[in-house]
Amino acid sequence: MKRILMGLKEIFCLANGEAIIQSILDTDYYKYLMAFFIWSNPLYRDTIVTFKLIIRDKRVRLADVIPESALREQLDECMKLVINPAECSFVGGMTLSDNKTIIIPGDFLAALRQMRLPPYDLKVENGEYVLTFTGPWWKVTWWEIIAMAIVSELYYYFSIKNAGLSEFEVMTTYAGMIKKVQDKIAIIRSEPGLRFALFDTRRRHSRYMQEMTMDIMRSEIPDQCVGSSSVLLSMKHGSNNPIGTNAHELPMVKACLAGDNIDRIRSAQYEIIKEWYDMFGHDMSIMLPDTFGTAQFLAGAPTWMAHQCKGSRLDSMHPDQATDLHVRWWEREGVDLQTKLILPSDGLDAQDMVDHYRRNGNKIGTMSFGWGTLAGNDCRGVWPRNEGADLFRPFSMACKVVEAAGVGAVKLSDNPSKATGPEDRVKLFKEIFGVEGAEERKVIV
Amino acid sequence: MKRILMGLKEIFCLANGEAIIQSILDTDYYKYLMAFFIWSNPLYRDTIVTFKLIIRDKRVRLADVIPESALREQLDECMKLVINPAECSFVGGMTLSDNKTIIIPGDFLAALRQMRLPPYDLKVENGEYVLTFTGPWWKVTWWEIIAMAIVSELYYYFSIKNAGLSEFEVMTTYAGMIKKVQDKIAIIRSEPGLRFALFDTRRRHSRYMQEMTMDIMRSEIPDQCVGSSSVLLSMKHGSNNPIGTNAHELPMVKACLAGDNIDRIRSAQYEIIKEWYDMFGHDMSIMLPDTFGTAQFLAGAPTWMAHQCKGSRLDSMHPDQATDLHVRWWEREGVDLQTKLILPSDGLDAQDMVDHYRRNGNKIGTMSFGWGTLAGNDCRGVWPRNEGADLFRPFSMACKVVEAAGVGAVKLSDNPSKATGPEDRVKLFKEIFGVEGAEERKVIV
Repeated sequence: MKRILMGLKEIFCLANGEAIIQSILDTDYYKYLMAFFIWSNPLYRDTIVTFKLIIRDKRVRLADVIPESALREQLDECMKLVINPAECSFVGGMTLSDNKTIIIPGDFLAALRQMRLPPYDLKVENGEYVLTFTGPWWKVTWWEIIAMAIVSELYYYFSIKNAGLSEFEVMTTYAGMIKKVQDKIAIIRSEPGLRFALFDTRRRHSRYMQEMTMDIMRSEIPDQCVGSSSVLLSMKHGSNNPIGTNAHELPMVKACLAGDNIDRIRSAQYEIIKEWYDMFGHDMSIMLPDTFGTAQFLAGAPTWMAHQCKGSRLDSMHPDQATDLHVRWWEREGVDLQTKLILPSDGLDAQDMVDHYRRNGNKIGTMSFGWGTLAGNDCRGVWPRNEGADLFRPFSMACKVVEAAGVGAVKLSDNPSKATGPEDRVKLFKEIFGVEGAEERKVIV
Repeated sequence: MKRILMGLKEIFCLANGEAIIQSILDTDYYKYLMAFFIWSNPLYRDTIVTFKLIIRDKRVRLADVIPESALREQLDECMKLVINPAECSFVGGMTLSDNKTIIIPGDFLAALRQMRLPPYDLKVENGEYVLTFTGPWWKVTWWEIIAMAIVSELYYYFSIKNAGLSEFEVMTTYAGMIKKVQDKIAIIRSEPGLRFALFDTRRRHSRYMQEMTMDIMRSEIPDQCVGSSSVLLSMKHGSNNPIGTNAHELPMVKACLAGDNIDRIRSAQYEIIKEWYDMFGHDMSIMLPDTFGTAQFLAGAPTWMAHQCKGSRLDSMHPDQATDLHVRWWEREGVDLQTKLILPSDGLDAQDMVDHYRRNGNKIGTMSFGWGTLAGNDCRGVWPRNEGADLFRPFSMACKVVEAAGVGAVKLSDNPSKATGPEDRVKLFKEIFGVEGAEERKVIV
């Protein structure tokens, strides 16, 4: 029988005896921007932080699925990672939109050449893994995407292995997933003006599936898929440079460094954007306003930010509401809405993007999307048996900073389901920032 | 039957309906260095030159093998090539060995973003193709490697198609080639200190075979294979940046621009190296002394060159003899031989490299090799039938500048079989440079 469908070897690194993460480029570009940003500031660079893997979905029990030895083996492999000369050239050659100004300079790459990932700490508590990473911020930050991508791929691989699916069942499972990708493409094609980038590294089904997803999007809807967050895939296959913004860890750590100084906690979310803007300029000035709540952020944001920053990434509030908040803010500040960008990135599927685009796309200059997990890892409903079907799906997972300089890190989010932090500190932050606009929304990923 | 051997689809782009050249990075890195060098000098940039495909081996009749329409189709595809943002980043990020100084700056890449390959001219004369490229030097120069790679792959593909080999015969043909690669690796392993880079783009069997060769070398002898001349493969798979030197076209065109001024013709070979050194510095200062004969070159070379240039690439004289000439020159100039590099690159096979390394490696600081055609395209003796076996082999081919600014271009070489140029002008150059050290040697590729 000539193989016309995909089996385990086409889906999983492990089926070929390969390490999941084989390159320090196998991460989102924003990690490069942030690591460089952190490294450049002596106040940040060596601040001791702890990141922690958080499985928000309590029905998913990793320790029941993934053998500890397999998890350790993959994490151990990462600690050997070294950036190599060709990778340095790619990262070091990217420029701002003027095609001239280098984004990541050679002196940071020189430090990166020497960098190794700091050790991880893996324990089992109450029958579940506790996976944390502690060390200097500029090094620990790399673990975020890498740890999630490993856990995600191991989860799916062992789900299938443990269930003992037949070769035919495996093939039909993945035929089903690919069919879903086709359906999504048809939906996206219905709105030809819609543009998105793939933000799908962290919760990918597997490394191979992420690559396949990108190949498919590039060949089927090349004008609509404008790139990927993956540095590795952009280097390997991309015609475009990777896309990168920034993450909650920046204001979260900045707020930790403020200790109990209420004024400094309050201003941390704005100061970090000012520092970011000073470093990368307008091209890269996409704000992430929801760390401590979008409504209070915009209410107190300085005027320069409305005028000079390019736009916002929407990561927890419903995009309708968040877009309207931004529109009102920019109008209040007398900004031309046609110059602004809105980038929804929170658990989107194809139909969500089309809906948001139709409802909100004409309100501002550019509405583009960060399409993550559901682009290439929508494995809902493809499990070939009844038993286990509810556990073969994308699950809500994050790898977040939980402590910096000995202080518990807080994220309030617009969606309380995505909030993190020690209780007393969360209480303090709610007092400082209020809870306006916070609304519980179901978190898929 | 599960396919365990390679068939046409695993070997040839054409069997999959693909264009052979799909990226302006699918060439040797020296084309980037030289195009930038040419573009930077207003005297060179728009000088009208003609490059011509030269099949040195008269038994190989391309027009009998390759349909004209197929050749035109592949050449036409190249004229659509545009460098894309991710490719720009890779080329623009490479640095000198200080890990800081950018080699190819953004202003040249900005010009390259706009660049399209100039038209080709294809005619049939006396039953054979005449393929020439005329236009501004900085654009025409790109055709050299691209044209050869196309002709090479088409030749092998149609040799097999025209002979009507069975699927099994195709598989055994390529099993034979891979076996030869294995034998070569065993030979190279016998001399663990030997280092080489793959210089195999121009006369590759096919794009896939070049990639497979690199994959094999990287996995089997990673410490000995230090890189590839291919920019595309270095970006796609490489851990190292591509390796690049410079070519005969530089002194050849410089000598054309000298017209009939004997002094300027005589000094062209040195002036061009001075300009190269001024542009790229010590890191890239590998001389190519054989354009008008190595003996006269070294006899008249200025002292600074012996001291400051890193070393020489040996491309036509026997490496024993050429190494000795260099050793005597450097000794005469009081240079520490341990600081110097010799890079033989002329039609080498594995055993040749081992022999040269054993005989000459200890005479100078570094002896490294540019291993070209016979690394991945040694298809001698693998043809599965008697008939046609003598024509399925690497063949001697070049794509050389034949005219610049209306003047015929001359290369004397140390090997008269590799000499090119119009008769009267060759005569003039022989009078100027003499023929000391010239020796007829069989040219395989």
